[in-house]
Amino acid sequence: MEESKQSNLNPNLFNHPVRKSLSLDAYLEGVLGNNRSILGQAITLIESNRLDDQLKAEELLVECAKAQRTSYRIAITGSPGVGKSTFIESLGLFLVESGLKVAVLAIDPTSSITSGSILGDKTRMAALSHHPQAFVRPSAAGSILGGVAQKTRQAILLCEAAGYDIILVETVGVGQSETLVSSMVDFFLLLLLPGAGDELQGIKRGIVEMADFILINKADGEREGLANQTKRAYLNALKLFPPKDSGWPRSAGLSSALNNKGLAEVWDKMKEYRSFTIENKFWEANRSRQAEFWLFELVDQKLKAQFYNHPKVKEQLSNIKQQVIDGRLLPMEGARDLLGLYGQPHKFEEL
Amino acid sequence: MEESKQSNLNPNLFNHPVRKSLSLDAYLEGVLGNNRSILGQAITLIESNRLDDQLKAEELLVECAKAQRTSYRIAITGSPGVGKSTFIESLGLFLVESGLKVAVLAIDPTSSITSGSILGDKTRMAALSHHPQAFVRPSAAGSILGGVAQKTRQAILLCEAAGYDIILVETVGVGQSETLVSSMVDFFLLLLLPGAGDELQGIKRGIVEMADFILINKADGEREGLANQTKRAYLNALKLFPPKDSGWPRSAGLSSALNNKGLAEVWDKMKEYRSFTIENKFWEANRSRQAEFWLFELVDQKLKAQFYNHPKVKEQLSNIKQQVIDGRLLPMEGARDLLGLYGQPHKFEEL
Repeated sequence: MEESKQSNLNPNLFNHPVRKSLSLDAYLEGVLGNNRSILGQAITLIESNRLDDQLKAEELLVECAKAQRTSYRIAITGSPGVGKSTFIESLGLFLVESGLKVAVLAIDPTSSITSGSILGDKTRMAALSHHPQAFVRPSAAGSILGGVAQKTRQAILLCEAAGYDIILVETVGVGQSETLVSSMVDFFLLLLLPGAGDELQGIKRGIVEMADFILINKADGEREGLANQTKRAYLNALKLFPPKDSGWPRSAGLSSALNNKGLAEVWDKMKEYRSFTIENKFWEANRSRQAEFWLFELVDQKLKAQFYNHPKVKEQLSNIKQQVIDGRLLPMEGARDLLGLYGQPHKFEEL
Repeated sequence: MEESKQSNLNPNLFNHPVRKSLSLDAYLEGVLGNNRSILGQAITLIESNRLDDQLKAEELLVECAKAQRTSYRIAITGSPGVGKSTFIESLGLFLVESGLKVAVLAIDPTSSITSGSILGDKTRMAALSHHPQAFVRPSAAGSILGGVAQKTRQAILLCEAAGYDIILVETVGVGQSETLVSSMVDFFLLLLLPGAGDELQGIKRGIVEMADFILINKADGEREGLANQTKRAYLNALKLFPPKDSGWPRSAGLSSALNNKGLAEVWDKMKEYRSFTIENKFWEANRSRQAEFWLFELVDQKLKAQFYNHPKVKEQLSNIKQQVIDGRLLPMEGARDLLGLYGQPHKFEEL
């Protein structure tokens, strides 16, 4: 709690400029023409926390939106060790071979300190990333999860403008990021290992409930029997969950990246889901709700950013905070003083 | 999510004025002199969402703080049916008979819709509430949980100014309110029933981890054996949890309101906890952290309230929101427009 407040206030960790900044037109042309190198640079521009980069990134996104290109946005989650990257690469190759253009993004809440990606500096998904119809991007860096989520969402928009049909968003199943990710995707896929229950795999119950489809991965060799058992157990467990807002019946299946098992099946499920939710209008309603959610998230973030970056607030914050900590000021008095410095007319509006 | 945003924006549900508002001096004199009727009215003043009431409430709290009275703040939680009210009344009577002054507050996140209290209009804890050394208050009403928590916190400060030694804060173990309650108390007591595991009792794992002491209640008659088993099971389970920040070794015990069993024991534990944490400096550090937490919570709430109550924002919000929902504006553009209306210089500060 303390810590997240702090990083909210001192977001200078990633405050380095984008190395070679292009003109807005160059970014726009590069993204719309799917120049992958420029797309990568445009995402770096989005990830920058510098004011001038942010202004340019915003203009770029507004221009990109005019192309009105969209995609099927899919979150793929699971704990470390479940074989997520291998699975995503296999699925990505399967999709590009079906003629689709595939982008892979990652959201990694744990990367905020090291600024590293899920797989560090290693080239991720080598085969997929070299395919001309694919784009693989390591995780966005950012000092707070909210920031990372916003930036991932913006990266999705850029990839769509570049013409990608499918955006796969990879996430670690630790609970924090999934709720945010589910507010930016259409379909939510959970990978589990054969055998162990979700709790033992570090997957929170809420994430299992969020899933549109559960795939028991590494269902090969001697694990196949166990994988089948696990699948049946989840099929039973899913019946006990309250239905999803989409009305979509959750189910479970098996996959093995080793022998490419389950890729066609899971893609069929995804297509079925899309038809099902377009038919019952959930698809569009969900996207509208997501847009509304992000509107309020952005307002909230920007209100706070403006407040904590106000020169007088910045100057007095640590002093007032210390007085509150020492008990010389009530939290209420401290809040009043800070809001007073902010220059807004101090009014105790109805809360 | 949607719903909480909404209630954040339209907080007029409890916008009725305090019936007979006293002068600031009358409130102050009444509270400091522990006039229980005036203390009750002062809490009603705090709960009011009217601007004039809030301004007066704030002044009152600042004046009350000057008395520098403090208390032992104790949260008591457990699912409905565990016998919380009966236990709290027994513990309260035990404490007043030991010469202490006891106030009972309640925080009830479910009361926001009906504006009702945990026990509705029934007189709560009849025997305790008639004791001259006790003050029993039904739950605070408020349109959002954050608001309820702030108001409960302020009610604690009023009760302390009135000279109560022990403040018992009753809460329902549903998970939402406990985190907030734990940020306003010194000690966290969890009541459980004999037999069923915490999950079956609707108690989230996180709440069990939060507890400083677990009391298996209704440990009487034929349930006594089962209660002993349950206690042992929790003593074992507690060993697996990460230690609390306080360094305090969590444990479990038995109680029965029916034959007043366990009251002296749990009070001994509470006293032991106080000595232990005063000794290792956690007590003071925890209170400082709580004050800091509430400072930022208040700033956050008031920033949002000022923003969403700004006349131009109010006027345009639904229009801009609809454009975002319809896809005519990006969430980012909508946020920029709303912040522009707010009149703050529109700057994309570093997030």
